[in-house]
Amino acid sequence: MHTILRSATREVIIGIDRPFVMIGEKINPTGRKKLAAALSEGNLDYARQLAESQVAWGADVLDINVGVPGLDEVAVVKKLVEMLVSVVDVPFCLDSANPQVLAAGLAAAPGKPLVNSVSGEEKKLDTVLPLVKDRGAAVIGLTMDDNGIPKTPEERLSVAEKIIERAAKMGIPVEDIIIDPLVLTVGSDSKAALVTLQTVDLLRKEFGVNINLGASNVSFGLPDRPTVNQAFLTLAIQLGATCSITDPAKLGATVKAADMLLGRDDNSMRYLKYFRAAEKLRTAEAEKTV
Amino acid sequence: MHTILRSATREVIIGIDRPFVMIGEKINPTGRKKLAAALSEGNLDYARQLAESQVAWGADVLDINVGVPGLDEVAVVKKLVEMLVSVVDVPFCLDSANPQVLAAGLAAAPGKPLVNSVSGEEKKLDTVLPLVKDRGAAVIGLTMDDNGIPKTPEERLSVAEKIIERAAKMGIPVEDIIIDPLVLTVGSDSKAALVTLQTVDLLRKEFGVNINLGASNVSFGLPDRPTVNQAFLTLAIQLGATCSITDPAKLGATVKAADMLLGRDDNSMRYLKYFRAAEKLRTAEAEKTV
Repeated sequence: MHTILRSATREVIIGIDRPFVMIGEKINPTGRKKLAAALSEGNLDYARQLAESQVAWGADVLDINVGVPGLDEVAVVKKLVEMLVSVVDVPFCLDSANPQVLAAGLAAAPGKPLVNSVSGEEKKLDTVLPLVKDRGAAVIGLTMDDNGIPKTPEERLSVAEKIIERAAKMGIPVEDIIIDPLVLTVGSDSKAALVTLQTVDLLRKEFGVNINLGASNVSFGLPDRPTVNQAFLTLAIQLGATCSITDPAKLGATVKAADMLLGRDDNSMRYLKYFRAAEKLRTAEAEKTV
Repeated sequence: MHTILRSATREVIIGIDRPFVMIGEKINPTGRKKLAAALSEGNLDYARQLAESQVAWGADVLDINVGVPGLDEVAVVKKLVEMLVSVVDVPFCLDSANPQVLAAGLAAAPGKPLVNSVSGEEKKLDTVLPLVKDRGAAVIGLTMDDNGIPKTPEERLSVAEKIIERAAKMGIPVEDIIIDPLVLTVGSDSKAALVTLQTVDLLRKEFGVNINLGASNVSFGLPDRPTVNQAFLTLAIQLGATCSITDPAKLGATVKAADMLLGRDDNSMRYLKYFRAAEKLRTAEAEKTV
């Protein structure tokens, strides 16, 4: 099953038989004071830098979230998307809890964008799916509903099924739905990662849908988070995850290594290409700081 | 299925429901000139340092190989094992292509040691299995035979079956056989890692035996080898590998992270303990070099 996203000029295909897709996470002011301040001042320059840098580091898609308290997000997302179109040629993933912001972003984005996100919550289903349908977009569906995040893989599968069925009724095909089985922090629940991995496995076997994962939440509160995040993403890729909203500079090498080890990279071409590009970026950054 | 190894004082249990076991690889002069020179001079001090350091970094078992051209290996392995018994309390893994060296090491080692290795080669089966049986040891069985290393997972499984059957005929129980499905370099064969991973999966499902892997051969010739090795070991652990002959300082954190993410580390206790110990070792080493 292929989820196809498009920018004005480029097509990104997400699928189990394709290279793992990285969705750059950094254009999101949550926890990024510098970005929040810049957006509040109407300065889009820092967001532009983040976009360029993430694409250079291998982001195939860019998540765009402008959630800053007090900001006119509808106006800002429009301006930001229009600006970004001129500097990067990747598809966008519009990310907001506010349907009006999603609508504004979807209207401004070219090609076929992705929406982050719907869930099994009735209000979300009712407000987000029509936007997705009208725009002919794809959407990330989180496995949580009005009762919260289910504890077991089977229950999370049921939420995914509900999202897929509701979307189907509206005419949104299953290949345009990417399920995110959600991961809680393993530091507070020893089985948290396992439940998510088991959900990935079930989703792959039962529905064959594309699967997205945030790869950093799992390590919250633990030391040496990169090692935990890298291991988690590797485990999830083997079970069938096909994309991740993540920092490509931190997890790109692991993603390319996993693709290569799983036999999806003939002659290690993409692994080697990524390594060379990363070396150049590291050298350039080192020179900048000298 | 549990493979139990013993030192004079300590028991190490290898099994899918247990923490992943690391067998320290460094007491092996192949590619280690300093160790080769020390052993040739009859100096065991460097080997002692390697033993202590690897155990400090989390090695559960120590591989012992004294293969230096021209050396009286039978005499040296005896002296070395007798010395090491007084400094570390982990079980030993006797590693040699020479059955007489294995015999000498097995005679000197306390408890229940491991033998590295037998294979499906007739000569190996005939010479190594009797040593294992007589000593009541466990043994690593490599999935290669007189025709070399088979290309397909199914053929490698057949070699494993042959080893297990021949051992059974001699009275060596299957739980004392750890199968090593072998990994070639992914840099020269894009499907090399995949074939090994598929063999791990088959071995786990068909035989339920313990499975060992060398985790560094896979990345030979590639840049950023640690990232590839870490990803490979993580993939293999998820499919059922239960031990690895490796450098615990390089792969220990990944192993503990994988155990934790797979739900085998209540309250992240072992992960946190390992991190704290590693931090102390890094601090001590940094102070030494100042």
